[in-house]
Amino acid sequence: MKRRRVCVVVASRANYGRIKTAMRAIKEHPDLELQLLVAASAVLQRFGNTLDVIRNDGFEPDATVHLIIEGENPTTMAKSTGLAIIELATAFDNMKPDVVVTVADRFETMATAVAASYMNIPLAHTQGGEISGSLDESVRHAITKLAHIHFPATELSKERLIRMGEDPSTIFMTGCPAMDIVAETRKTLDLERMMNTGGVGPTLDLRQGYFLVLQHPVTTEYGQGRRQVEETLHAIHDLGRPTLWLWPNVDAGSDDVSKGIRSFRETRQAQNVHFFKNFSPEDYVAIMSNSLCIVGNSSSGIREAAFLGVPCVNVGTRQSGRERGKNVMDVAYDRQEIKNAIQAQLAVKRYAPDHRFGDGTAGKKMADVLAVVKPSVQKRLSY
Amino acid sequence: MKRRRVCVVVASRANYGRIKTAMRAIKEHPDLELQLLVAASAVLQRFGNTLDVIRNDGFEPDATVHLIIEGENPTTMAKSTGLAIIELATAFDNMKPDVVVTVADRFETMATAVAASYMNIPLAHTQGGEISGSLDESVRHAITKLAHIHFPATELSKERLIRMGEDPSTIFMTGCPAMDIVAETRKTLDLERMMNTGGVGPTLDLRQGYFLVLQHPVTTEYGQGRRQVEETLHAIHDLGRPTLWLWPNVDAGSDDVSKGIRSFRETRQAQNVHFFKNFSPEDYVAIMSNSLCIVGNSSSGIREAAFLGVPCVNVGTRQSGRERGKNVMDVAYDRQEIKNAIQAQLAVKRYAPDHRFGDGTAGKKMADVLAVVKPSVQKRLSY
Amino acid sequence: MKRRRVCVVVASRANYGRIKTAMRAIKEHPDLELQLLVAASAVLQRFGNTLDVIRNDGFEPDATVHLIIEGENPTTMAKSTGLAIIELATAFDNMKPDVVVTVADRFETMATAVAASYMNIPLAHTQGGEISGSLDESVRHAITKLAHIHFPATELSKERLIRMGEDPSTIFMTGCPAMDIVAETRKTLDLERMMNTGGVGPTLDLRQGYFLVLQHPVTTEYGQGRRQVEETLHAIHDLGRPTLWLWPNVDAGSDDVSKGIRSFRETRQAQNVHFFKNFSPEDYVAIMSNSLCIVGNSSSGIREAAFLGVPCVNVGTRQSGRERGKNVMDVAYDRQEIKNAIQAQLAVKRYAPDHRFGDGTAGKKMADVLAVVKPSVQKRLSY
Amino acid sequence: MKRRRVCVVVASRANYGRIKTAMRAIKEHPDLELQLLVAASAVLQRFGNTLDVIRNDGFEPDATVHLIIEGENPTTMAKSTGLAIIELATAFDNMKPDVVVTVADRFETMATAVAASYMNIPLAHTQGGEISGSLDESVRHAITKLAHIHFPATELSKERLIRMGEDPSTIFMTGCPAMDIVAETRKTLDLERMMNTGGVGPTLDLRQGYFLVLQHPVTTEYGQGRRQVEETLHAIHDLGRPTLWLWPNVDAGSDDVSKGIRSFRETRQAQNVHFFKNFSPEDYVAIMSNSLCIVGNSSSGIREAAFLGVPCVNVGTRQSGRERGKNVMDVAYDRQEIKNAIQAQLAVKRYAPDHRFGDGTAGKKMADVLAVVKPSVQKRLSY
Repeated sequence: MKRRRVCVVVASRANYGRIKTAMRAIKEHPDLELQLLVAASAVLQRFGNTLDVIRNDGFEPDATVHLIIEGENPTTMAKSTGLAIIELATAFDNMKPDVVVTVADRFETMATAVAASYMNIPLAHTQGGEISGSLDESVRHAITKLAHIHFPATELSKERLIRMGEDPSTIFMTGCPAMDIVAETRKTLDLERMMNTGGVGPTLDLRQGYFLVLQHPVTTEYGQGRRQVEETLHAIHDLGRPTLWLWPNVDAGSDDVSKGIRSFRETRQAQNVHFFKNFSPEDYVAIMSNSLCIVGNSSSGIREAAFLGVPCVNVGTRQSGRERGKNVMDVAYDRQEIKNAIQAQLAVKRYAPDHRFGDGTAGKKMADVLAVVKPSVQKRLSY
Repeated sequence: MKRRRVCVVVASRANYGRIKTAMRAIKEHPDLELQLLVAASAVLQRFGNTLDVIRNDGFEPDATVHLIIEGENPTTMAKSTGLAIIELATAFDNMKPDVVVTVADRFETMATAVAASYMNIPLAHTQGGEISGSLDESVRHAITKLAHIHFPATELSKERLIRMGEDPSTIFMTGCPAMDIVAETRKTLDLERMMNTGGVGPTLDLRQGYFLVLQHPVTTEYGQGRRQVEETLHAIHDLGRPTLWLWPNVDAGSDDVSKGIRSFRETRQAQNVHFFKNFSPEDYVAIMSNSLCIVGNSSSGIREAAFLGVPCVNVGTRQSGRERGKNVMDVAYDRQEIKNAIQAQLAVKRYAPDHRFGDGTAGKKMADVLAVVKPSVQKRLSY
Repeated sequence: MKRRRVCVVVASRANYGRIKTAMRAIKEHPDLELQLLVAASAVLQRFGNTLDVIRNDGFEPDATVHLIIEGENPTTMAKSTGLAIIELATAFDNMKPDVVVTVADRFETMATAVAASYMNIPLAHTQGGEISGSLDESVRHAITKLAHIHFPATELSKERLIRMGEDPSTIFMTGCPAMDIVAETRKTLDLERMMNTGGVGPTLDLRQGYFLVLQHPVTTEYGQGRRQVEETLHAIHDLGRPTLWLWPNVDAGSDDVSKGIRSFRETRQAQNVHFFKNFSPEDYVAIMSNSLCIVGNSSSGIREAAFLGVPCVNVGTRQSGRERGKNVMDVAYDRQEIKNAIQAQLAVKRYAPDHRFGDGTAGKKMADVLAVVKPSVQKRLSY
Repeated sequence: MKRRRVCVVVASRANYGRIKTAMRAIKEHPDLELQLLVAASAVLQRFGNTLDVIRNDGFEPDATVHLIIEGENPTTMAKSTGLAIIELATAFDNMKPDVVVTVADRFETMATAVAASYMNIPLAHTQGGEISGSLDESVRHAITKLAHIHFPATELSKERLIRMGEDPSTIFMTGCPAMDIVAETRKTLDLERMMNTGGVGPTLDLRQGYFLVLQHPVTTEYGQGRRQVEETLHAIHDLGRPTLWLWPNVDAGSDDVSKGIRSFRETRQAQNVHFFKNFSPEDYVAIMSNSLCIVGNSSSGIREAAFLGVPCVNVGTRQSGRERGKNVMDVAYDRQEIKNAIQAQLAVKRYAPDHRFGDGTAGKKMADVLAVVKPSVQKRLSY
């Protein structure tokens, strides 16, 4: 019997961590064949070597595609998505996948969803039914409406998909593959070596603990990114603790955030911060696992950190509405609020693990579903 | 006070009939400025002179854009959409609209929705919440999830939008502008002159009544269009009555349908059928209004025909699930079923008018809403 | 030793006939590996089954690409070229050819030239140094300026390339592969069967001889195609002889020409003309070889017909300036001039063969060069 | 009488300096109307505020277009060009220029040439007939073959255009508009203020003189940019003199060059170098005029510097073959050679002005030609 071809599109470093274990399980499944497209910021040096990380993990892309149009503003975010549809359609036309998998809710993710659904290729979507701020909120639900197979990460998300009119027989609550990596995580990590070989900034002494910071632009608050990140920069600078800071994603407004960071570096000589562009998913988990607190607006502070019990200070609106555990304290874009919350979290140290986003078996579950599911490309609102 | 710039994107002849009275009302509204983009099949001769029709109605486009990639298959349908996003994003970036209006559910309509929503431009969407078959079903609901202002055509559609998680304060039940044209319709029409100056096929004697046929490909049943249209062609041929047949839209599979029609014309010498590529919205309504029965799978057989009480024989799955009145008889792709249903409808002659899709004031209502609504570009699922 | 990867891009039926024997020779060469991209009108049904013809000849494309933007006007001709560059660049990036071959001078051919030369992939170009009318004239010489290896078809063309500043060591006078097919041609052909299975129009009795007509739009005379073709249509209609007419290429203005033909067919009931969309290169040569005269503005009337000694009546400016043999009579867009010239050619019957465009060994010569040539991607004007 | 619409496309800061005075002259000419498109790197913050500079000079773009695809490698250079053709074709289709002007030889410049010439819009090209290294060499001559009006900058270039087969009646030796700015230059300039408000690096004391450095990647030597720039960086570092360094253009390999510069800055603490992203054309000339020596591979070291008599040390192959005056010393990518040459130039101090690239009246001459020239869109090789 011909193996079913499952095409996974990886378009960013964040995508990759959230689908990697599913890719592995698809590759190893006797009835499935993995097709891999790597595109968008995942092929750009400027956002770290996601493509190298993928290859080091033993995955060889069937094709790589450059499609990010420069500017990092709302116009180019739209145009990059348009270009992605054009290129992915040609790729799908030649690769002839039986199913396409798209991950979560980034702007380019929509391109995968449009190309596959328009081409009558069954589309599987992860992380549907979640709530957040930013454009991601709109994109996520629009993709749900194009997708034929849903892999929500939580029970609550599954319920929301049903309420949105999706056919319950097409919804498979698997948890998020990012939790699989967290579950497999090793706690040791030679961070000093990493600092000497990668990133920019001073080599820090991390033995007394460190903060982990990620702060992305909020696309629907375009133009405010610099001011927003400066509040966090000031808070971290004032606290003076060693900090590992991961560069923002490519998104409308990234340039603003980067400018804020660069300018702060030039003028403030931030002696306690080392900046990185990319980690492998495993290194990222290990770094988070060992950190005192994760600060910023990455969803990983809510998701992976819940699993690990790592305290999170969540800044601003990007994650507003997202289901969360006890490890998260929400604050506004305000340096004093941020500092206070970090201090409070330092007092707590660790929370009880919370596995609501997955129990570490999501990738395997997805592959098992993809091997047997018989999706219809004709959708119908259920009410 | 600066007038609010409302940009309407017209991408097909079908789009135009469903938004024309709103365009007129926007143009005439003291607080609004109409911006008009005409694109996709609306600028192609092959699909009739939609652009000429628009200009004859007194609207001058701010820009026209060629963006349909040849092939009329699922791959090119996706790629055209990608190209549309690229071009519309540049257009919006330069025109700086305050609101963008996108119509219904055609594949290219999605491009308007992605470009505007990604660019944080409030997006108004008509005909959300309806149900049908074909890719349109997926596209319509995905656009709903990107839109910030909803103009559903029916009460039931409005209810569905709320159930899908849209904020009720952003939903305005206006009815469909296509009904405005129906309400304004004049009954007289010099069809013989039209036949002598346009279309192809014999000049027919319409004094004893005629059928109106439109049959589009069903994109999710790609590859079956030729067989599907042949059933209708045979039924019409067998019945022998004069028939006005409108060429299909550009969609994946249009070429199949066209080939079926062309081949039938060559071999069967269809003496009772005259083919047209395009009408103005008003002519189209007059033709329907005077017809004995509308046959095929156009939504106008369900919507406009309900308002007029014209009998409809709806063939196949394209409209499956769509709310409908008593004037519609559903049949499979089967020449005998089609013939029987037409005969049954001929016996009925006319149905009582049904205004569920609008009372003839939709365009004006939309303009009035657009002049005052204060949409947020940050959406949030309501549950 | 790794075989050198030679990527041939076939973008139209005309391209294919002019490169087919080189493709065969590359495929069979022990030191070369053939990569094949089929794109543009070569993948469109509307222009006949070039892709099927290619597959029937035993070539399997590495990828096919839809990239023609509808409209057949100067704007879409430019846009299709832009889209082609985008898609070919991605394809080359993944296929990693060592050399790319581009054929002659059609508008999309430029896309291959830009993509390859920008990517530092050595570019081989056929038919450089020739002269003609239409946009082809500009395109051909611009491609010469991007190409690193030249395969001119004639001695005169070779001289012109040197005068244009190309390095003589990069110029290889091979003749044109289209002549290889002519040299191999069989004279027998079951045309009646072809008429019964393909094309449109009456089945003709060809035993007393027939004309072959091809008339393309002249892109630099955009808007005049309909009037131009009508002159030829009238001449052919008046002469009354059986005629095989091949549909025009996709080019700005094709739609005009097609409209002229369609309208003539509807109104004049052209009883002596059968229309075809495509032939295999071999069938085309056999048809020409057996014809009384080739009429229109195809370069094959000048090139292939010279080899065969078939009389040609060349209409209008499209081939103006092109090197030619004695078999060609040039006339204006004028029905009377066309008729007179055809009558004169009928009196001549056949000309002595003229092999100036190749001796039937071009394909093999090209492969042999491609196996050993060491092109530099850094060009330099030679004076 | 309707004024002739002349559309100028500015795609980079370098483009702008070379066309600015022609734009001014077109704008002021009674028979001409200036249309302005600003696109590519000229709209990117990352390459400095070219768009702001243009607006400050009193030019308001009719449209701006984002079209650079990220990656700065040969693949994205090709793809950006493809995207540019698509977008410029739509822009031209709506703006309906009577003539389009394209500047010199950058990769995106080709897009303007293809779009205009394919659309039968007369294309005027500046700087044709020059010789250099890099992809620019191929691009420049390919554009010549598409252009209908030529504005070469030197007599020798004019001769080369004629030898390449261009019609002498379409060639107008105007000189280069960049020389107009040089001729108008003021010598005073508050560089210290500039250093305090722009660029990065230490504030330098320039009173004892300074070097000016620009070093771009050589696209045909892609992958070697980092090593190449390091030689210059070492030479400049060793010499220890205050240096103003202008960031490289967007080109395949720019990222390499930038990485070399960034890494050098981090590790070597280059105390004598201040880096800038952009200057207005006038500021740039003033900076060059006051500099001791211009170093690197910018054509301005050969062109503008000749006019000013400023010594130039030209590094590597990018300008190889370019016509030059006595002020230029050519060296290899070798720190010792570079240092020696700079020392030699310091001994010379100043050269006699050399006006071979223009006498300061080019912009006006171009406008005067554009107002009266009657170009044919049908080209023909002259031999």
